[in-house]
Amino acid sequence: MVTGMEKPYVVGMDIGGTNTVFGIVDSRGNVLATDSVKTQSFSKIEEYVEAVSSKLRPLIESFGGVEKIKGMGVGAPNGNYYNGTIEFAPNLPWKGVIPLAALFEEAIGVPTALTNDANAAAIGEMTYGAARGMKDFIMITLGTGVGSGIVVNGQLVYGHDGFAGELGHVIVRRDGRQCGCGRKGCLETYCSATGVARTAREFLVARPEPSLLRDIPAEEIVSKDVYDAAVKGDKLAQDIFEYTGRILGEALADFIAFSSPEAIVLFGGLAKSGDYIMKPIRKAIDDNILKIYEGKTKLLISELKDADAAVLGASALGWEVRD
Amino acid sequence: MVTGMEKPYVVGMDIGGTNTVFGIVDSRGNVLATDSVKTQSFSKIEEYVEAVSSKLRPLIESFGGVEKIKGMGVGAPNGNYYNGTIEFAPNLPWKGVIPLAALFEEAIGVPTALTNDANAAAIGEMTYGAARGMKDFIMITLGTGVGSGIVVNGQLVYGHDGFAGELGHVIVRRDGRQCGCGRKGCLETYCSATGVARTAREFLVARPEPSLLRDIPAEEIVSKDVYDAAVKGDKLAQDIFEYTGRILGEALADFIAFSSPEAIVLFGGLAKSGDYIMKPIRKAIDDNILKIYEGKTKLLISELKDADAAVLGASALGWEVRD
Repeated sequence: MVTGMEKPYVVGMDIGGTNTVFGIVDSRGNVLATDSVKTQSFSKIEEYVEAVSSKLRPLIESFGGVEKIKGMGVGAPNGNYYNGTIEFAPNLPWKGVIPLAALFEEAIGVPTALTNDANAAAIGEMTYGAARGMKDFIMITLGTGVGSGIVVNGQLVYGHDGFAGELGHVIVRRDGRQCGCGRKGCLETYCSATGVARTAREFLVARPEPSLLRDIPAEEIVSKDVYDAAVKGDKLAQDIFEYTGRILGEALADFIAFSSPEAIVLFGGLAKSGDYIMKPIRKAIDDNILKIYEGKTKLLISELKDADAAVLGASALGWEVRD
Repeated sequence: MVTGMEKPYVVGMDIGGTNTVFGIVDSRGNVLATDSVKTQSFSKIEEYVEAVSSKLRPLIESFGGVEKIKGMGVGAPNGNYYNGTIEFAPNLPWKGVIPLAALFEEAIGVPTALTNDANAAAIGEMTYGAARGMKDFIMITLGTGVGSGIVVNGQLVYGHDGFAGELGHVIVRRDGRQCGCGRKGCLETYCSATGVARTAREFLVARPEPSLLRDIPAEEIVSKDVYDAAVKGDKLAQDIFEYTGRILGEALADFIAFSSPEAIVLFGGLAKSGDYIMKPIRKAIDDNILKIYEGKTKLLISELKDADAAVLGASALGWEVRD
């Protein structure tokens, strides 16, 4: 009765603290067209939804209208899949609980599902990327923070309340670094891009040796600077990645004891730092893994193209919505 | 075509390092009859299967024969659900990979499924106990070691290889206590019954105060002694539970960040130490939980009756076998 081609497209939307990007995606994961708005320009949610919709509607029209769209998937911080809501997102302009999926369904006329950005990335990886065909894997997103999406038996793990999978906030050092969440020692205080810059500042104070990083004002150092220095042979910069990779690998060894995934997929800028980060991660996993899991879980890097990844990840959720 | 009552019974079997206990269970979770053999008496697996079968067959006959049995569920250390095998179990007499489910299917003529003991306990709790009706919960078994069974979306988490859910071997103290698994600082080195006894010996050396526990030769102290002393008002014994509960609660707060369960169900002797252990666990969860999970996850004690729990847990798997 229905063929996939009747509705050959989905809409993907990634809501970030700075930009909201959305686009039309086909079943092979080609991002056919995108547009964006500045998230922070709209203090009222109604204005925001209308601003996005007024750009999204003509985009949809140019691909044949809403009858060609299977669904819309939205990735957003603090997104709750069960309710289609964004709940108390600290980096977005709208406070409280926002029924975002319902608002867009009404504005656009397309069934809409919503989840947090790391879960969207996991679904994207499973649909179009490195985790195709896998039923058990863990996606770790290494950005400003550390996020995660966990897939078990081919399904995203949402938990009883829709908020499962906050592995960036597992405690890796008791009474360790202060985290933005109010607690101390969270994984993301060490292994995010921000965490790498923080480690750089600590190392530069604690160690007397010369380093290319000393040419940059300490407060301005970002993880890209550490990578650039490491590539130039800077020992201190390389040690920063070693330190970061070890802590991440130790944590991953524990995550494997939870769901014994076929693979862990790393996503984000840090994951592209090559052997500087991947070697210490692998070594720390090997050094810390329980014997029955030894050598079984693959460590992979995301195959989603950087520029499109967020839209692509969210769009994958669009294939799963109920009509 | 088929009603539940056509095959009103299941067989549950718990294979422990010391005893193998098996019994007939009805759909309400009544253990109607049990028998047992000494696991260690049989160095050959064929002799073991025959010894168990020669006692199990008459038991089954007395309830109307194999045509009344829906299936058999087996809980065993290092049990692999996918393959029906026991793999490299250090505390059992048979080495390597043992196709136990197939051996029993042949000997008894009843479809048989097998999983590890903590997973069996989780299925038991979901079928007959404190987790009835729940789709997301974590079972933690506190015995000689610490085991776990994780349920997500109403399904046991087995992982890609059948060995998921070894939360007793998550590292809670880097370079902490030596664990039997060869690594250091595993949860079970602190929060098992053995871990409690170990803490007692450490505290008795490190602290000068009097304690009822000093009346017992240090190497003979077991967790029950600590409980008895705590009940009598012994401060040092109470502090041992406080220490144990805090480490367990810290770990549980991290587990919640993984699968956001509706409940964590504690099983085993330690869980019955009442407020001495439950209060510090609750406090440590509250002190360490990420804000979005605050106050959402129930901490429950198993409702399975002690004597029958292992057989009951395994038997629940018998309802799920394919004919």
